[in-house]
Amino acid sequence: MDTNSGLTRGGRASSPFNSAAPLSRGLAPDLLDRLLTPALLVDLRAAARNVDRVIAWAGADADRWRPHLKTTKTPQIWALLLARGLRAFKVATTAELRVLLELLDGLPAGDFGDVLVAYPQSSASARRTSQLAALHPRHTVSVLVEEPAAVGLVRPNVGLFVDANPGMDRTGAPYDDVDRILATARAAGPRLRGLHAYEGHLHADFPERGVRIDACFARLRGILRQLHGAGVVVAEVVTSGTPAFRHVLETRPLEGAAGEPLHRVSPGTVVLHDLRSELENPELGLEPAAVVLSRIVSRPRSGRVTCDAGSKALAAEAGSPVAVALGIRGLEAATPNEEHLPLDGPEGALPALGGLLDLVPMHVCPTVNLHDRVLLLDDDGVRDVPVAARGHELFVDD
Amino acid sequence: MDTNSGLTRGGRASSPFNSAAPLSRGLAPDLLDRLLTPALLVDLRAAARNVDRVIAWAGADADRWRPHLKTTKTPQIWALLLARGLRAFKVATTAELRVLLELLDGLPAGDFGDVLVAYPQSSASARRTSQLAALHPRHTVSVLVEEPAAVGLVRPNVGLFVDANPGMDRTGAPYDDVDRILATARAAGPRLRGLHAYEGHLHADFPERGVRIDACFARLRGILRQLHGAGVVVAEVVTSGTPAFRHVLETRPLEGAAGEPLHRVSPGTVVLHDLRSELENPELGLEPAAVVLSRIVSRPRSGRVTCDAGSKALAAEAGSPVAVALGIRGLEAATPNEEHLPLDGPEGALPALGGLLDLVPMHVCPTVNLHDRVLLLDDDGVRDVPVAARGHELFVDD
Repeated sequence: MDTNSGLTRGGRASSPFNSAAPLSRGLAPDLLDRLLTPALLVDLRAAARNVDRVIAWAGADADRWRPHLKTTKTPQIWALLLARGLRAFKVATTAELRVLLELLDGLPAGDFGDVLVAYPQSSASARRTSQLAALHPRHTVSVLVEEPAAVGLVRPNVGLFVDANPGMDRTGAPYDDVDRILATARAAGPRLRGLHAYEGHLHADFPERGVRIDACFARLRGILRQLHGAGVVVAEVVTSGTPAFRHVLETRPLEGAAGEPLHRVSPGTVVLHDLRSELENPELGLEPAAVVLSRIVSRPRSGRVTCDAGSKALAAEAGSPVAVALGIRGLEAATPNEEHLPLDGPEGALPALGGLLDLVPMHVCPTVNLHDRVLLLDDDGVRDVPVAARGHELFVDD
Repeated sequence: MDTNSGLTRGGRASSPFNSAAPLSRGLAPDLLDRLLTPALLVDLRAAARNVDRVIAWAGADADRWRPHLKTTKTPQIWALLLARGLRAFKVATTAELRVLLELLDGLPAGDFGDVLVAYPQSSASARRTSQLAALHPRHTVSVLVEEPAAVGLVRPNVGLFVDANPGMDRTGAPYDDVDRILATARAAGPRLRGLHAYEGHLHADFPERGVRIDACFARLRGILRQLHGAGVVVAEVVTSGTPAFRHVLETRPLEGAAGEPLHRVSPGTVVLHDLRSELENPELGLEPAAVVLSRIVSRPRSGRVTCDAGSKALAAEAGSPVAVALGIRGLEAATPNEEHLPLDGPEGALPALGGLLDLVPMHVCPTVNLHDRVLLLDDDGVRDVPVAARGHELFVDD
C-alpha cells in the first residue's frame, strides 16, 4: 500500500480531517496549562459513535462482530463495546487477555465473555494463556493453532481455532494445504471452536478489493465443504479486519456454507479510527476519536515549525505523513525524529510557538501502544487512565 | 538514507551480525522456559565495552563526551557511564531528566551531574524541568532556547544553551541567522551555558561525510567568532551524534575557536549499538549489546517462518529490515505487522517452531522505548528492571 497516495494525489487541501474540530477543545484551560505534551487523548463520545456505525453496518446484529482489542488496549474504552452487548473479542497478547478477563469479571452473574487470543502460541505463552483462563473460569478463552503439533502446547481449558492463511503469509496453514488444515482440526478434536482466516492484505481500492475478497471467500467455502465432508464441525469462522469487513457484512459470503458456521468479522481500528483507515475506507463514515496532543516548540527555518510529537509518541512505521492536524489547513508533516515532528506550510498557515496541535495518527494501534496513560474525554469531563494492556508480559510463573 | 542498501548490496550473507553469538546464550534454561517473548535483553558487558571504545576514540578523555540517554532510558545502564567518570549528559524528556537526577543523587557528596535537556521547551515542560531542577539542587540542569522570547519561559534555576540549526531543519535558529543566535544568547545573559548544534543529518558515506562535517564546523567557527566579537562568552559547544562523532573527535574542528569553548560530542546509540549504526559506521568497532528475544510461532508457507516480535516490540520506522538475527545466516526479515515478523530464507536455513531468535534492531532507541522492562545480563547473571524513563510524563503540578 502506498499510504502517501491518498494525500498526495489531492494535495494538502484534501487531508480528510483538516476541517474537523480539535478534540482538545473539550479540555479546560487549567488542565491544558498543566498538560505536558505529547499526550494521547480519546473522545469516548466519538468512539461510541464509531462503534454504533459498525454495528449498523452489521444490520444491528452486534454478535456478527468480534472486535480486535489490540488497538484500544484500555478497559475504559472496551466498556463501550460491553455496553452495546458485545461479548466476543479478539486479542493478540497475554497482557490484553489479562486486562480483558479482569474487565469481564465485572459482568453480572450468568453473563460471560468469549476471548480469542488470535495468535499462534509458544510454549510459554500457551502456559500463560491457560493460567489466565484458569484464573477467570467463567469466560471462554481460545487460541490459534495451525498444525497438529501445536495442539499439544495448549492445555485443555483453552479452546482452539484453526488458523488458515488466505495468502497474507503471516500466520496459518495455507488455503492450498487443506490436508494440514484438516489434520490440525482433527488434532484439536472436541476443543475445536472454529476457523480463523485473516485476509488483512486486501488494501486495493474497490471494486478490485471486492473482487479479491469474493475470491478469497469462494476458496474458504471450499475448505469448509471439505472439512464438513470429513466430519469436522466448524462452529464459527472469524475473518476480516477494517479493509474488508463492510463488504463482508453486506455480501454475507459464508451464508449457507457447509455446516452453517457463525461468521464474525474482527476489525479493531474502527473504534478509534485513523488516517490510514480513512484513506483506505472513506465510505465507512467513521470519526477520528484519538489524537496525540502536541505543541509547537521550534521554528527552525522559514516555512517550517516543529512540534514535540515524534516517533516515540506517534507510530511512524506506516509511512508519511505520520499524522494530520485536526482543524488546521495547509500544514504537512515531514519525517519525524524520535521526539520531533517538523511541519511545513505557507508562512501564514504556520501555528505560533506554543500552539497546540491535535494530531490524528496515520496508524492508531501502535500509537496507543506508545503511551502509558490516555486522557479520556466525555460529557462528564476528562480523566486520565493507564493504557493497561500496553506492552508485553515478561514471565510466566507456573 | 537508504537503510536497505547496506544489506541489499552485499546480499543476505553480508548481514553484519549474522556470525555473532546470540546474547541469549547467557540465560539459564529454566529462565528461558518461563520467559514470554518478545523481550528486550541487554548485555551489560558488551555495553561497557562499547562505552570504553567511545572513550578511547575521545583519546581517553571521557569529558569530551556528553552522551545522549534517550537510547538507554535505564539507570542501571547509565551506571556504566557514571562508573567511567562521565558526569555530563543529554536527555530529551522530563521523564529521562527525573530518572537521571534520582540516579545522580546517589553520587558521593561533592560530586554532581550536569544535564542538558536538549530540547526546546513548552511552557508546561519548562515548569516541570525547573521543578525537577529544584528538587535536585546539587546538579546543574539546562535546556535549549532558540529565540529571545523562549528565554522567558525558563526559570532562573535552569541554565540555557542556544540551539543553532546547522541545516538539519529540526530545531534551532538557522546558522544563516546569526542575528537571531546572538539575540538569543544576549537574552540568556549570565544563564548562558553554551551552544548546541546537532548535525545528525550527515548520513552520507565517508569521505563525503567528512567534507560535509568540516564545512559545518567551518561555519560554526564563524558564528563563534561573531558571538565572541559581540562580547558573548560560549563556554561549551555540544555537537555530533553517532554519524559524525568519530571524525569530530579526531579532527577537533573547534580547537582554538574564538573563546576556546569546551567541545563535547553527544552520541547515545553507541552504548547499545544497532543495525543502522553498524551499516553507517562499521569502522567504530561496536558490538550489538541489545536484542529483542523472539520465538518462531508460525510456518505460513514454504520458505517463510513468522516470529512473535512485530512493530510493537521492534521499532519499524527506520525501514527494512527492522532487525537481523544474531548467529543465524540466510534469514531475511520481511515487513513486520504489529505482533508478527515474517522471516524468509531457504528451507534448510529456517529455524524450527519454538526456536529462539536474538534480533538486533535496525534502530535501538525507539525499540528500547517500546519495552516496559529489560533483562540485564552480566557476569552475575540476569535481572529484569523497568525501563524507568520510557514514555512521557503527563502533568506538571506546580
